[in-house]
Amino acid sequence: MGGDALAKSKTRRRRSGKSASGAADLRVIPLGGLGQIGKNCTVFEYGDDLVMVDCGLMFPEEDMLGIDYVIPDVSYVEERRENLRAIVVTHGHEDHIGALPFVLPRLDVPVYATKLTLGMIRNKLKEAAPAYEPRFHEIRAGDVVELGAFSFEFIAVCHSIPDGVGYALHTPLGTVVHTGDFKLDPTPIDGRVTDYGTFAELGRRGVLLLMSDSTNVERSGFTASERLVGRTLEELFRLHRNRRIVLATFASNLHRAQQVFDVAARFNRKVVLMGRSMINNVALARELGYVSVDESLLIAPQDVDKIPHNRLVVLTTGSQGEPFSGLVLMSKGEHHHIKLSEKDVVVVSATPIPGNEKLVSHTVNRLFACGCDVVYERERQIHVSGHAAQEELKMMLSIVRPRYFVPVHGEYRHLVRHNQLAQDTGVPARNTFLLLNGDVLQISADKAQIKGNVPFGSILVDGRVMGELEGSVMQERRDLSEEGILTVSVVLSTDGVLLRPVVTESRGFLHVDMAEELHREVRETVMKLVETAARKGSIDEEDLAQKIRGRVKDLVRRHTRSYPVIMPLISLVEV
Amino acid sequence: MGGDALAKSKTRRRRSGKSASGAADLRVIPLGGLGQIGKNCTVFEYGDDLVMVDCGLMFPEEDMLGIDYVIPDVSYVEERRENLRAIVVTHGHEDHIGALPFVLPRLDVPVYATKLTLGMIRNKLKEAAPAYEPRFHEIRAGDVVELGAFSFEFIAVCHSIPDGVGYALHTPLGTVVHTGDFKLDPTPIDGRVTDYGTFAELGRRGVLLLMSDSTNVERSGFTASERLVGRTLEELFRLHRNRRIVLATFASNLHRAQQVFDVAARFNRKVVLMGRSMINNVALARELGYVSVDESLLIAPQDVDKIPHNRLVVLTTGSQGEPFSGLVLMSKGEHHHIKLSEKDVVVVSATPIPGNEKLVSHTVNRLFACGCDVVYERERQIHVSGHAAQEELKMMLSIVRPRYFVPVHGEYRHLVRHNQLAQDTGVPARNTFLLLNGDVLQISADKAQIKGNVPFGSILVDGRVMGELEGSVMQERRDLSEEGILTVSVVLSTDGVLLRPVVTESRGFLHVDMAEELHREVRETVMKLVETAARKGSIDEEDLAQKIRGRVKDLVRRHTRSYPVIMPLISLVEV
Repeated sequence: MGGDALAKSKTRRRRSGKSASGAADLRVIPLGGLGQIGKNCTVFEYGDDLVMVDCGLMFPEEDMLGIDYVIPDVSYVEERRENLRAIVVTHGHEDHIGALPFVLPRLDVPVYATKLTLGMIRNKLKEAAPAYEPRFHEIRAGDVVELGAFSFEFIAVCHSIPDGVGYALHTPLGTVVHTGDFKLDPTPIDGRVTDYGTFAELGRRGVLLLMSDSTNVERSGFTASERLVGRTLEELFRLHRNRRIVLATFASNLHRAQQVFDVAARFNRKVVLMGRSMINNVALARELGYVSVDESLLIAPQDVDKIPHNRLVVLTTGSQGEPFSGLVLMSKGEHHHIKLSEKDVVVVSATPIPGNEKLVSHTVNRLFACGCDVVYERERQIHVSGHAAQEELKMMLSIVRPRYFVPVHGEYRHLVRHNQLAQDTGVPARNTFLLLNGDVLQISADKAQIKGNVPFGSILVDGRVMGELEGSVMQERRDLSEEGILTVSVVLSTDGVLLRPVVTESRGFLHVDMAEELHREVRETVMKLVETAARKGSIDEEDLAQKIRGRVKDLVRRHTRSYPVIMPLISLVEV
Repeated sequence: MGGDALAKSKTRRRRSGKSASGAADLRVIPLGGLGQIGKNCTVFEYGDDLVMVDCGLMFPEEDMLGIDYVIPDVSYVEERRENLRAIVVTHGHEDHIGALPFVLPRLDVPVYATKLTLGMIRNKLKEAAPAYEPRFHEIRAGDVVELGAFSFEFIAVCHSIPDGVGYALHTPLGTVVHTGDFKLDPTPIDGRVTDYGTFAELGRRGVLLLMSDSTNVERSGFTASERLVGRTLEELFRLHRNRRIVLATFASNLHRAQQVFDVAARFNRKVVLMGRSMINNVALARELGYVSVDESLLIAPQDVDKIPHNRLVVLTTGSQGEPFSGLVLMSKGEHHHIKLSEKDVVVVSATPIPGNEKLVSHTVNRLFACGCDVVYERERQIHVSGHAAQEELKMMLSIVRPRYFVPVHGEYRHLVRHNQLAQDTGVPARNTFLLLNGDVLQISADKAQIKGNVPFGSILVDGRVMGELEGSVMQERRDLSEEGILTVSVVLSTDGVLLRPVVTESRGFLHVDMAEELHREVRETVMKLVETAARKGSIDEEDLAQKIRGRVKDLVRRHTRSYPVIMPLISLVEV
């Protein structure tokens, strides 16, 4: 496993990447995930060996109009493809695996991950890159894998998806410890706790660099155990014994699904799964042994009407108010199988991801309008986070006791505050580094420094089309979206005679009484501009377009104080 | 005061609006603010008398592209303008006064409000409707004003802006109590507590209907006192005695401003105001006596560099991450007077209004990137809400003890839950009404019922243009924003000969390598469609446009899986 990569790297070790003394430096290069939450992607480089860890997507910002998602620009790695030994993946969340269908077929290297993570990647590839045959290497926590100059030692961590790992990356210069996405839940549902022992042992032996999850650095205390949610579920099942229970949560939170199955069985209810990703993830997890549920507990969607309301649980997607998800369709009365009424109680077992607040809020309002009861408040303990809070982060820092520290998986403010925590636990300020995407942290035997940067960026994915984050296209979409467009179509002979009346057309322009008058004025203005232009003998198309754009813009602004995109279309015809 | 309205109404009392028995019904009609937070506007109608209470704006939903704000459709009142006795305004927040510049000049009736509220309305009118001369009537808490069949008794309430009132509306059928926006802060900064005594006395005498603020019905317990923020400010001033302090808050929260002035004076710092609305509101409040600050404490923006960092406080707008506000300009390094650095601590004394979370988050990230320290977390007690939480709402219900209850000022879920609270305090479920905008609550001597509805709606304001919420325009803007636009311009002779090559142009289309090829294919397809059309002898313009739209759409979708707006422009020329 990984032997071919190792062999290759040995023959090339001599070519480059060495410091003046002859020993190579270790280079840590985030290509995504720093200064943002999403599209995690990190490269480790030593001599001629590169390894990439994670390759996720990010959901678009509000001003990325029409974009489905964003993936990291990995051209730095593509240009060094022959040196790339593998992609290592820590867990199966979208922000860690979502870019693989685009990136993996192009890089075509082995992938190392745990069984469930590989299963989720395989499902994604099947859909988006069915022709590609991946080279998968299944690892377990505790395994050690040699990849070129690197040796990866995988460490179990507890998170909101099963089978997550962090790792110790042993390099000739020392050991890098990366927590992955983690929390220290001492009573996880699957009994697989974060492996404190290994982290502590690594700390005892000496850690060069710790990279740690910053997502919840703003939260004081400890993140509650997933088991707490199970208790709340029991209470809800007891309280609402005469109603149907509809529970929405993240489709990847299979611990949560397991708890729903367990409580349902205990209260003698059947469970129906709704939402494509919920159905797929539970099927995969059952197949691979991550979720244990008796076949008799589950019923098919078309059979829901055969089960009395108070004997059924609906486990569905839509906890983020996603437009076509199960819960949202139900809230709109558009779901094929579930019609909500005062006989239902809906439990939203999630908190809104930043940016989704309004979608969730609208969904809850619609649910209430269906007449059902809704349980959704933070204080009701129906959801816990998958990320470590301040006390856990300090504990991790204290047991790993790294020489250098780099906070990862966070927006700028999370990184700043995580660095402060590290300093509180005794890491000298000069040894904490605020890396952003593209920065190179260069570590030699005696020091670490941020030295230069590599190309990085965001690739926007819009349907099947990928493009650079080009300011101009997004700006055009914003302009169009805010004010609409007004086209002015002019057909002229080459010597400047109008061959048909000026035609104006608009889209996305606010309806106003003055619209007619405005269009008339625009046409008159354009006709005058054409006359003036014609006096020069021949028509300069570009110049006329420019003038039309300017004058019509003024006119519209004066009438309406709005700024639609003005698009002159001049057709010169030889007659 | 109000005499002319009263006289008018008397002469017309007989005409309409009576029930079969000869006695009129009371009609309570929300035109805005129910099922949403924003654009509050309520109409009370009895016989021939109408009074409108509040007339606010609402900030647009995310899918209202390019809209500046939304105001209520008050055509129901406009059509009955001769019966409208007055507009009563409870306090000076935008969601209660923001539509007045549009609505008041058209309705032209007297306005009743407290001194500060009138001052804020006057400032808005000066800007947006300078020619209009309003008829203002200043009232104070405790005043009673006769308006037709109605008698308004104003009641002091504590809120996040000074000089707010609720009211008892005495009608021939009984008394309606409306809390206005309120909380029960027992230690307000200006000493003007919510007048429990009057609410209790009204309750003792018997209240027909209570309408109560639902904003914070989801929060358990009591809303903390504004005074708590003062304590926190003191601690921050003590902790950061060597830094400049920049504090951002709502420009209308003049209690907060007062506390900043007080603490600054105590710690021997000067204060500079930044942001137009902060400067205007503080000026107005000082002029009218709502804020007390020694002239020597304030310095002008251009003088900030004369004051040492640790002797200055900057009080600014921008706590919601508003694009051109003081704090946001500072965070971008674009502010004329304030450059932030590690010598600054920024205090964001507000919580994000739902929908603003991302704007605030981006601002905080940029502030950290300036090197300054930032205090922004909920748990740090640097902000308190202006609205009553559950325990306060229950207390209000318990002391007013109404026969009927209507929750107001809330989204659907808030109204549902507030009705539940009312039922918990003993109001029978059949006497609680979930009114939505446009619903008519009709109250007679022996019963209340939701009976029919009146025209209502949202007027979108985009610059100077107002329009109905027309699905088509917003849908066009959404289509444009998500996929861009592709125009196809064809110039033909009337018998179908192309007079110049087909020209395609796009805006907001994602840049792709295939763009050139796609444009070529589009042109070829269009040429073929033209040829086919020409074979029929004469060109049917509409039919050709239809065909171009369909075929080009297919072509683009197949190439890119995206759906730009296709806009064919066909010019037929007689040659």
